Amino acid sequence: MRTQVAYLGPKGTYAEQAASAVAKLEKLSQPVFIPYSGLRSVIEHLANKDCEAAVVPIENSVEGGVTTTLDSLWTYPDLFIQRALVLPIRHALISSGSIDEISEVLSHPQALAQCSDWLRSNLPNALQLPTNSTSEAVRMVQGSKFRAAIASKEAAEINGVNNIAFPINDVPGNCTRFVLLKREESKAIPRADLASFAFSLHSNTPGALLKALRCIAELGLNMSRIESRPSKRELGEYIFFVDIDLKNKPIDIEKKLSPLLQPFCENIIYFGSYKSNQINPV
Amino acid sequence: MRTQVAYLGPKGTYAEQAASAVAKLEKLSQPVFIPYSGLRSVIEHLANKDCEAAVVPIENSVEGGVTTTLDSLWTYPDLFIQRALVLPIRHALISSGSIDEISEVLSHPQALAQCSDWLRSNLPNALQLPTNSTSEAVRMVQGSKFRAAIASKEAAEINGVNNIAFPINDVPGNCTRFVLLKREESKAIPRADLASFAFSLHSNTPGALLKALRCIAELGLNMSRIESRPSKRELGEYIFFVDIDLKNKPIDIEKKLSPLLQPFCENIIYFGSYKSNQINPV
Repeated sequence: MRTQVAYLGPKGTYAEQAASAVAKLEKLSQPVFIPYSGLRSVIEHLANKDCEAAVVPIENSVEGGVTTTLDSLWTYPDLFIQRALVLPIRHALISSGSIDEISEVLSHPQALAQCSDWLRSNLPNALQLPTNSTSEAVRMVQGSKFRAAIASKEAAEINGVNNIAFPINDVPGNCTRFVLLKREESKAIPRADLASFAFSLHSNTPGALLKALRCIAELGLNMSRIESRPSKRELGEYIFFVDIDLKNKPIDIEKKLSPLLQPFCENIIYFGSYKSNQINPV
Repeated sequence: MRTQVAYLGPKGTYAEQAASAVAKLEKLSQPVFIPYSGLRSVIEHLANKDCEAAVVPIENSVEGGVTTTLDSLWTYPDLFIQRALVLPIRHALISSGSIDEISEVLSHPQALAQCSDWLRSNLPNALQLPTNSTSEAVRMVQGSKFRAAIASKEAAEINGVNNIAFPINDVPGNCTRFVLLKREESKAIPRADLASFAFSLHSNTPGALLKALRCIAELGLNMSRIESRPSKRELGEYIFFVDIDLKNKPIDIEKKLSPLLQPFCENIIYFGSYKSNQINPV
C-alpha cells in the first residue's frame, strides 16, 4: 500500500525536502507526497483521515517554535509524533534580474526574518512582501527582472529561475526540526531520542509551574526544550510544551511521569517517544 | 517639547490605537505619532534615537508572544518597558463588495490566523494573502469588489471602505498587550503592576531552569508568564522571558532577584517595573 504524506507545498519547499528524507529514513514503500497550501490545512487533512501521514516544521533555531504545529498537537490529541528530522536551512536569493535591478523581495515571513540583516546590507530599499510559502514566492517572481524570492536552491531549479546569491541567511547554522505525524503512537520507545508532551496547570497559582518541573527533575530527566503557548481562553493562561532528551535515559515517559504530574495539571497530552535524526549541510 | 512616538503603521492599525491610548495615560504633551512599516523597523528607529518612544505589541491572547519584540528587548539592552496596555482586538471584514463576491482575503498573518474558523465557515474558497499590517491590507482592497481585508473598524473608516461583517475573530476575548518602550528605565517601581526580565542559562545542564525558577519562588513571587525564545546560536539553547506580578507584592526585582539568579545564569537583562492598564471592549 502506498503511504500518502501531506506537506506544505507547492513543490520545492523545505517541507518537501524534509518529507522526502523522512520517507527514506522510515523506509515507507512508494510514498506519495501531497502538497497543501497552508500548514494548518496540512495538519487538518491528516486529522480528517485524508492521508496517512504529514511532515511539518515544529521548531526553527532562529525563529523558535512553529505555533500552528504546537497548537494543533494540543487541539488534535489523536495525532502523534513518529520521528523528528533536523534540516539545515540555507536560503538563496532567486530572480531573473541582477541584484541592482531588484525592487521587491518576496518570501514566507519567517524566511524574510531569517535574512533581514543580509537584506538591509544588500537591498536596503527593496519592498518586502510576505507569501504563504518560500516556493510560492519563487513562482511569483518568474519572468520578472525587478522581483526576487527567498527560497532554497532546489526551489530555484524546479521553477527555472536563477539563484543570484547564496547563502543569504543571517545565522549560518540556521536549521528547522520537522516531525512526522500520524494518527497512531510511535513504537520507537525502546530506541527513542526524544519524548514530547504538553500540559496545562490547575489555575494560575504561584509556583504551579515549578511543581510540575520538579516532577521532571525528580526522575533525573533532562528537559531539552520548554515552550509556552497561550491557552486562548485568557491572557496569562498557558500550555507548556516539553521535550525530554531520552538518549542517556530511556524511560516510558507517559507511564512514569503521569502519576507525578497529574496532581498539578489540568490536562496532559503525550505526543510520543521517537527517533531524531539530523541532515548535515552540503 | 513634543514626544515622537513610533508605531507599526500605516494609520488605522491596532498599534496606532494603542499608541494613542498610551500617550493619554502617560500624559505626554503634544505627542507626534510616527508610523513605520515593519515592527523591527519601529524598534530600530527607537534604538537609533530617531524618536523618544515606541508602542509595540508584546503578546496576544490567542497567537502568543510577539517574537520580534521579545528578541529586540534582548538585542537592545538599553530599551526599557515604561508601561503596558491590554487592547481588545475585534476584527472586521472590510470590502467594497458583498460577501458572496469576495474571492481574496488580505491581512497580517496573525489576523488571518485569528479569524481562520470564521473564514472557513463563511469564505471557504477565498484565497488568503498575507500583508505587512492590517491597515495596509485595507489600502490594498480599496476599490475592489472581489477583495476583502481583515482589520479594525477604525481602519475601514479611515480608508473609506465598508465594514461588511463584525466581529469576525474566532475567540471573543481576543486581546493584545502593547508596551511603551523608551531608552530609559521606568520610575514606576513603587506603584508598578508588572516586572519583566529575561535570562539565559549557563550551558544546557539538566535542571538548570528549575534552579532559576526556584529563586523566583523563594521570594514568594508569582510568575504571570514565561516564554522561551531560541538563543539563535544552536537548536536547544534558549532565552527565558519572565513577567512577575507585583500587584500584591511590590519589590525591586532587579535588586532582590539578581543575587539569587546570578549563579545559574549566563546573562540577565531587566526590562523594568511598570503599570499595566486594560482598555475595555466597547
